[in-house]
Amino acid sequence: MITTDICIIGAGPVGLFAVFEAGLLKMRCHLIDALPQVGGQLSEIYPQKPIYDIPGYPEVKAQDLVDNLMDQIEPFHPTFSLGERVDTLDRQEDGSFIIGTNDGTQVHCQVVVIAGGLGCFEPRKPEIEGLEKFEGKGVSYMVKNPEQLRDRRVILAGGGDSALDWTIFLAEVAKEVTLIHRSDSFRGAPDSAEKVYELAKQGKINLVLQSNITSVNGNGHLKEVTITGKDKAQRILAADHLIPLFGLTPKLGPIADWGLNIDKSAISVNTVDYSTNVERIYAIGDINTYPGKLKLILCGFHEAALMCQSAFRYVYPNQKLSFKYTTVNGVHAF
Amino acid sequence: MITTDICIIGAGPVGLFAVFEAGLLKMRCHLIDALPQVGGQLSEIYPQKPIYDIPGYPEVKAQDLVDNLMDQIEPFHPTFSLGERVDTLDRQEDGSFIIGTNDGTQVHCQVVVIAGGLGCFEPRKPEIEGLEKFEGKGVSYMVKNPEQLRDRRVILAGGGDSALDWTIFLAEVAKEVTLIHRSDSFRGAPDSAEKVYELAKQGKINLVLQSNITSVNGNGHLKEVTITGKDKAQRILAADHLIPLFGLTPKLGPIADWGLNIDKSAISVNTVDYSTNVERIYAIGDINTYPGKLKLILCGFHEAALMCQSAFRYVYPNQKLSFKYTTVNGVHAF
Repeated sequence: MITTDICIIGAGPVGLFAVFEAGLLKMRCHLIDALPQVGGQLSEIYPQKPIYDIPGYPEVKAQDLVDNLMDQIEPFHPTFSLGERVDTLDRQEDGSFIIGTNDGTQVHCQVVVIAGGLGCFEPRKPEIEGLEKFEGKGVSYMVKNPEQLRDRRVILAGGGDSALDWTIFLAEVAKEVTLIHRSDSFRGAPDSAEKVYELAKQGKINLVLQSNITSVNGNGHLKEVTITGKDKAQRILAADHLIPLFGLTPKLGPIADWGLNIDKSAISVNTVDYSTNVERIYAIGDINTYPGKLKLILCGFHEAALMCQSAFRYVYPNQKLSFKYTTVNGVHAF
Repeated sequence: MITTDICIIGAGPVGLFAVFEAGLLKMRCHLIDALPQVGGQLSEIYPQKPIYDIPGYPEVKAQDLVDNLMDQIEPFHPTFSLGERVDTLDRQEDGSFIIGTNDGTQVHCQVVVIAGGLGCFEPRKPEIEGLEKFEGKGVSYMVKNPEQLRDRRVILAGGGDSALDWTIFLAEVAKEVTLIHRSDSFRGAPDSAEKVYELAKQGKINLVLQSNITSVNGNGHLKEVTITGKDKAQRILAADHLIPLFGLTPKLGPIADWGLNIDKSAISVNTVDYSTNVERIYAIGDINTYPGKLKLILCGFHEAALMCQSAFRYVYPNQKLSFKYTTVNGVHAF
């Protein structure tokens, strides 16, 4: 049995930074993540991509941000269970919890912080004949490493920002980009849609509107995609990669059974301390929602800081919290 | 007349980052600051001090953080009026404002953002005979550069965290440190107080409790400080520097007349968009307050991001806000 003050579910950037804020209040953390490494989306989906909206970093590679966060929390010695999924949550008589994972790890903690980000969601898969057979063999539901698509024939499907943004991005990278969308208007940002129309006009991408993908075919690896128009006309396109981008669908797993208030696939919290409706359970980062919520890493950092001030009362019920700045004496003074 | 979308009062880290978030929404900013340079407290009070609680920076010098923020907002071409104080705020018929400074600068803007931090406050000065005569000549109300105190005889006064933290810090730097406090218990963090008692026991500092400074003397520069105990006994201490640290007192200046709700020397805002009770006026960073408020730079960054989403409606009343991430196309796409 692992014993800790705070068990953080999700070791993405927000979960990692929570360790720092907890550490300043002398609270220790254990983190559990289904992925085999820390960093969440940053490390899993776009480690080599630059991020531009971390305050104080005009540009930082996603993996470098994760590495820096790991350095920042090192003085507080967090512990990790990686590659494990949370399976059970048992409330103890004294209000604390025992969390169990699919690997049999047990964690006793005073407070649970859900920082699962989009990891609590999975891509929405369209119903296309034969699709699952080619998963990992040409079919994927996110762009992990755009370099793998260099000089390949790529078909994207969808009408939101992901589909538009990746179409624009890959137009410069792939040999051939086709965007298939069932309607002829896009849900994504108007100026992105405009750019996609313009790229199509210039012949830099193929734009197939009012159409759906109806089947995929290949021989061990994806080779071709059948498209059916609203007029029932069918045509077959050769392709090395098919990437349906139809958004995400919640995959809260056992967390869904914990009695948390859910609003539009996110966990409702209040903005005083980012607590959920269940005492001693907090939710921070992309997994939570509240009026004004923005899914930005920098917002998750703020949420982590306020959450820790509140969680303190459960870890040290008899102590008055004394808020101190790190500037004068540094981190090792804590 | 300068014309801009958002006029930001205060060019500290939070005001600077607001330019970035505004820029992502195509809103332009003009910043006004009473200090002659950007960076607020970071540049003015402790430019060479390391900060440890900026997410993703295990350690960063205050001035380096400011420089990085300036690089980050450069693509959005903010404009500045530095070394000027806001004097007037005139609401126009269409809801916009004209702001005037003491130098006669006029700024027409749709939205006002107060990001004045502690710059809206001034040190609380104790009533000590002859004190003002030695300001800048041995007497100061904050530690700007600890190196200037190396090997000098320093007297600190106060019972809060600043007095405790600087006593601990300067014990290693100054030739002689004396802390004078009117009571014998401290308001600051218990472990800091403990450390100060320990340093006194070891003879590394002088601790004078239950006493007040009653007069100062010198010859062009501070030379000695008279201390009066609760028992009326007086003694004179030789000193090169006297630093009374009695906290801050609000100095909102003309802002106090704008009808803003003030709570404990801070501007009340809501947490949906960090707006004040006056339409089109927002307050972000250390100057604002709300339930759960923490005076951390990282919280001001979050507040800046949410504020911009709300301010958009006044700058582009007929446009739908389309929220985009910078990761895919970078900053220059905005």
